[in-house]
Amino acid sequence: MSKLDDMCVNTIRFLSVDGVEAANAGHPGLPMGAAAMAYVVWDRFLKHNPKNPAWADRDRFVLSAGHGSMLLYSLLHLTGYDLPLDELKRFRQWDSLTPGHPEYGLTPGVETTTGPLGQGFGNGAGMAIAEEFLAAHFGADIVDHYTYAIVSDGDLMEGVASEAASLAGHLGLSKLIYLYDDNKISIEGSTDLAFTEDVSARFESYGWHVQLVEDGNDLDAIEAAIRQAQADTERPSLIRVRTHIGFGSPKQDTAGAHGEPLGEEAATAAKQNLGWPLEPTFLVPDEVAEHMSAAIDRGAQAEAAWQERLDAARATDADKVSLFEQIMAGELPDGWQDAIPTFDADGADATRNASGKVINALAPVMPNLLGGSADLAPSTKTMIDGDGAFGIDGPGARNFHFGVREHGMGAIVNGMALHGGLIPYGATFMVFSDYMRGSVRLSAIMQCKSIWVFTHDSIGVGEDGPTHQPIEHVMALRTIPNLMVLRPADSNETAMAWKMALQYRGPSVLALTRQKLPNLGVDEYPVADAVKGAYVLSDADNAQVVLIGTGSEVALAMEAQEALAAQGIAARVVSMLCWEAFRAQDDDYRASVLPADLPKLAIEAGVTLGWHEWVGSDGDVIGIDHFGASAPGPVAMEKFGFTVENVVERALALVNG
Amino acid sequence: MSKLDDMCVNTIRFLSVDGVEAANAGHPGLPMGAAAMAYVVWDRFLKHNPKNPAWADRDRFVLSAGHGSMLLYSLLHLTGYDLPLDELKRFRQWDSLTPGHPEYGLTPGVETTTGPLGQGFGNGAGMAIAEEFLAAHFGADIVDHYTYAIVSDGDLMEGVASEAASLAGHLGLSKLIYLYDDNKISIEGSTDLAFTEDVSARFESYGWHVQLVEDGNDLDAIEAAIRQAQADTERPSLIRVRTHIGFGSPKQDTAGAHGEPLGEEAATAAKQNLGWPLEPTFLVPDEVAEHMSAAIDRGAQAEAAWQERLDAARATDADKVSLFEQIMAGELPDGWQDAIPTFDADGADATRNASGKVINALAPVMPNLLGGSADLAPSTKTMIDGDGAFGIDGPGARNFHFGVREHGMGAIVNGMALHGGLIPYGATFMVFSDYMRGSVRLSAIMQCKSIWVFTHDSIGVGEDGPTHQPIEHVMALRTIPNLMVLRPADSNETAMAWKMALQYRGPSVLALTRQKLPNLGVDEYPVADAVKGAYVLSDADNAQVVLIGTGSEVALAMEAQEALAAQGIAARVVSMLCWEAFRAQDDDYRASVLPADLPKLAIEAGVTLGWHEWVGSDGDVIGIDHFGASAPGPVAMEKFGFTVENVVERALALVNG
Repeated sequence: MSKLDDMCVNTIRFLSVDGVEAANAGHPGLPMGAAAMAYVVWDRFLKHNPKNPAWADRDRFVLSAGHGSMLLYSLLHLTGYDLPLDELKRFRQWDSLTPGHPEYGLTPGVETTTGPLGQGFGNGAGMAIAEEFLAAHFGADIVDHYTYAIVSDGDLMEGVASEAASLAGHLGLSKLIYLYDDNKISIEGSTDLAFTEDVSARFESYGWHVQLVEDGNDLDAIEAAIRQAQADTERPSLIRVRTHIGFGSPKQDTAGAHGEPLGEEAATAAKQNLGWPLEPTFLVPDEVAEHMSAAIDRGAQAEAAWQERLDAARATDADKVSLFEQIMAGELPDGWQDAIPTFDADGADATRNASGKVINALAPVMPNLLGGSADLAPSTKTMIDGDGAFGIDGPGARNFHFGVREHGMGAIVNGMALHGGLIPYGATFMVFSDYMRGSVRLSAIMQCKSIWVFTHDSIGVGEDGPTHQPIEHVMALRTIPNLMVLRPADSNETAMAWKMALQYRGPSVLALTRQKLPNLGVDEYPVADAVKGAYVLSDADNAQVVLIGTGSEVALAMEAQEALAAQGIAARVVSMLCWEAFRAQDDDYRASVLPADLPKLAIEAGVTLGWHEWVGSDGDVIGIDHFGASAPGPVAMEKFGFTVENVVERALALVNG
Repeated sequence: MSKLDDMCVNTIRFLSVDGVEAANAGHPGLPMGAAAMAYVVWDRFLKHNPKNPAWADRDRFVLSAGHGSMLLYSLLHLTGYDLPLDELKRFRQWDSLTPGHPEYGLTPGVETTTGPLGQGFGNGAGMAIAEEFLAAHFGADIVDHYTYAIVSDGDLMEGVASEAASLAGHLGLSKLIYLYDDNKISIEGSTDLAFTEDVSARFESYGWHVQLVEDGNDLDAIEAAIRQAQADTERPSLIRVRTHIGFGSPKQDTAGAHGEPLGEEAATAAKQNLGWPLEPTFLVPDEVAEHMSAAIDRGAQAEAAWQERLDAARATDADKVSLFEQIMAGELPDGWQDAIPTFDADGADATRNASGKVINALAPVMPNLLGGSADLAPSTKTMIDGDGAFGIDGPGARNFHFGVREHGMGAIVNGMALHGGLIPYGATFMVFSDYMRGSVRLSAIMQCKSIWVFTHDSIGVGEDGPTHQPIEHVMALRTIPNLMVLRPADSNETAMAWKMALQYRGPSVLALTRQKLPNLGVDEYPVADAVKGAYVLSDADNAQVVLIGTGSEVALAMEAQEALAAQGIAARVVSMLCWEAFRAQDDDYRASVLPADLPKLAIEAGVTLGWHEWVGSDGDVIGIDHFGASAPGPVAMEKFGFTVENVVERALALVNG
């Protein structure tokens, strides 16, 4: 290692140590052990432009082990991103750009929010998929970059990473290069306590190219391994780099270096051991600053060269380049709104089917709409007809067979969205949203536009029984901030739900039925108001009670309205497609839909928890506060009280006070 | 294969086919392909007593691929369990004993509820752990059985199974024998679409003994492989059995045989192909009935022999056998209540620490209390001091290093609980409850006594930031039926929460703080009432407003009460430890705690969704409906409105109407 290289690596180490010490919280061990490999990636490989973190053709770098965030902040600062040293000094403080774990959208250069282990691993696979897909469509002149990540023991223990690894190997994502910080220490102690599998053999079994670098401080060995990884154009790469957590400190190779500050004494000893000045803290030697900030010029040149290629391509095919620029800017392709179908008023269909029709209507005008299901496509209706399977029918195909890997799918779909240029969706049964909730939450934190298609959304599932019948899921998803949960009542609301999802800047859930629902009459009802989240679907003069339904229960409310009318009771029916959108309306609109002086009865085939926000103290809720039962769907619905008779009875009780 | 064997296998196949046909729903393909391996296990190996499904020393059999439920129902019926043929004819119907997926507690002989893939895989590992642990404590004379499972492609794709497999290999659970129904078909089609990893190599990398049986109908080859698996006393076994989904039918080896009835035509063709009578359906030839019901006598003899050994052991050590019988009956060991500590009124501690103290106070009198954390034990405070690590310090040790494998931990802990005899707990940060929600839900469906210790339960976590700060989690857990969610306000409520969890027949969540909380005064406050879920912690004469707090926000409510008093406003403080318990009280009690005529202000550092059930239309909620931020915990709390000033202001607004 040259003296300069050594200084650069130590600068990264001790910026990290000093940051953690200043915060009196954080994880110094990973940055100290992994500084060398990170330096090699950033100094010798990473194609990026620190002055334009949004450059489309940059390499992506993911710190999957997000607890080592100071490593990333140090690199971003040193290579010239808009992250001043003062921000590093404010590590983990209120309103700083250097939170405890890297946050996408907050700190320039952070490609994804990491911290919950395994997610970054899956995000990277999604980014590599996006690169392959876009390269297939727009050419390698315009799209040609790698996805690197540093992953940890913890990442590799997580099931979400196992799922993503198996799929990445299956798909042969050869531009995915992961460096495994193999430091043999996790929070409880040695990995021998819990993690004695043969990681190399495991990744080879997935179809990965696996290499071992014995000395994690050997820059040239790491470089050589990365070059080998790049040379493999068939397989993703895992480079296992043997490192020492807390390298150089008295706590090296112990769990004590993992999740807490070294403390002044050990920090001092580490600096002495590695020949680093004790003062000043947050030291960046001039040579280091100069060497590492050369990334700015390199990045500017790389982007300029790319811009020339882009312009050349524009001369050949202006529409193609224009589309590329449009989708990379996050804009939807022209004509998407007009492509959304409307459905006949007298039709009937499961909303999962309607969703499939919307997807297939959008697909021709939205070449960047793509996705798939966790081995349930025939049921979730998410296949794009006439298109192929990504990986099997080439890298430009739009259907994804994610396998029975919900969580991996979630992390991958997020990575596809984060890469930019794509509108990805991931689908499974609503009940299995539980399996991927970690990824759904991260899509909400990051506000990336992942679209989650969750079908079979109630006990209406029927015979499969309680393990497959969602009870609490729709409500549990509504508890997640930033997530738009849409439960459409018929085919036309499903079209509206897709429209809302596509327009929303963050992630959405489409909660769709297995069972057929009648269309509610597109000529008669103001489906356009659905965008407001809730609206009066069918009013009555001098209404005495409001029936609020969502999804499959709206048709039931309509039937009950009629039955009540026969008894001389006037009922208003409100369809409540989306709580989040309704909350965003002004008080007047909300009060116009749900007047304070009318009793309200909510009907939803799920838990009642939460509904009192809308029905108030005097209202009532028909829901289901226990698990379901195996029986044909209509039988289950009837047995659990989703009948006209029950709605009428409960509504009458409200009216009669 | 003998003619009789052949008839038995075909009986299993066609009972399954006929069941699915009668229901017009279900999965015929798996039972048809896996009937032979299941028959070998049940006819030649399984130690069980059909007339006493609760016999402690039975082998456990898990159908992890629960969609093949008719396979299991057929076996249970044929071997003499209390499952009449009429119930098989009522497959998937309301109120039958044969639901779409096997349900623990409903059908005799079903050891665990399966369907959500990968869970049964993990449950089996937990059962094998329980067997090893109990054998270590009570001797192989009393506890000596295997855990078998049939697992599918889908199981092996799931991350939860990967996690459990890695841990099972690490722990060397040699009495775990899994037969992999390697049929190369999943719902979307060939497994080549998504699953091309080398499964054998993967399981070898985990430290499993892997064998391959090329012909899934070769009973002797399957038998030989199981004997080899039994002979390996160091490693768990995966026997990869090449099978044909929908064997014998025209839909063999296609996805069409997976998840829907064969249809009359294909069912008929299958019977003709395999030389099976077309009529009657649900045919059980007399020879088959006689042969397979021999399991009854074999089982009675096996249990009698075991009973003799148990009685012999009783003669030697009556206390030991008595304890064994007590814990296997689900009773708590004597003296557990007295062991629960009380904490000084003037103390202060994080509730995670209090929980650790309760665990360690219980451990000496509850030798069957055991568990661990997903690599966070130093933070979740779940180590039993002075005890060792299971697997490393022998099979009798009580601390588990689950690794960074939350979901696998969840499924394993459920398996430990299901085995009987143990009170297991699993711990991680509250925010990562998302990673294991699939298992938490199943614990609730099964009502098995898994105790989930989720610490770091709010933005009070502080510097780790939004990825580590629960916002929606406590409420999202409350949406799960049967699950008791306990959020104690101080050390004494934590002790009460443990008591409630131990007494509850189902699963519980303990939501615990990272940060220190003042004890609320054990001499002064009626902590015993906490068992009612909510209670008046501190009242005021002529209270004008009720402040409802949970967990860390109760102390804030107490401070606000004082500040309000200084302004001449009388406030009552209610601590709401557990919504589920409070709901179970009678109307009078609930109204006595939360009077209808008083305005109510709830304070909880989580989403407000749900709270209107308790505060009503005119009440208010101080919560947090967005993600958190990285900053020291007290700063985050203050910035997000958890201050005395804010509580006072909002309470005044309520009082002043």
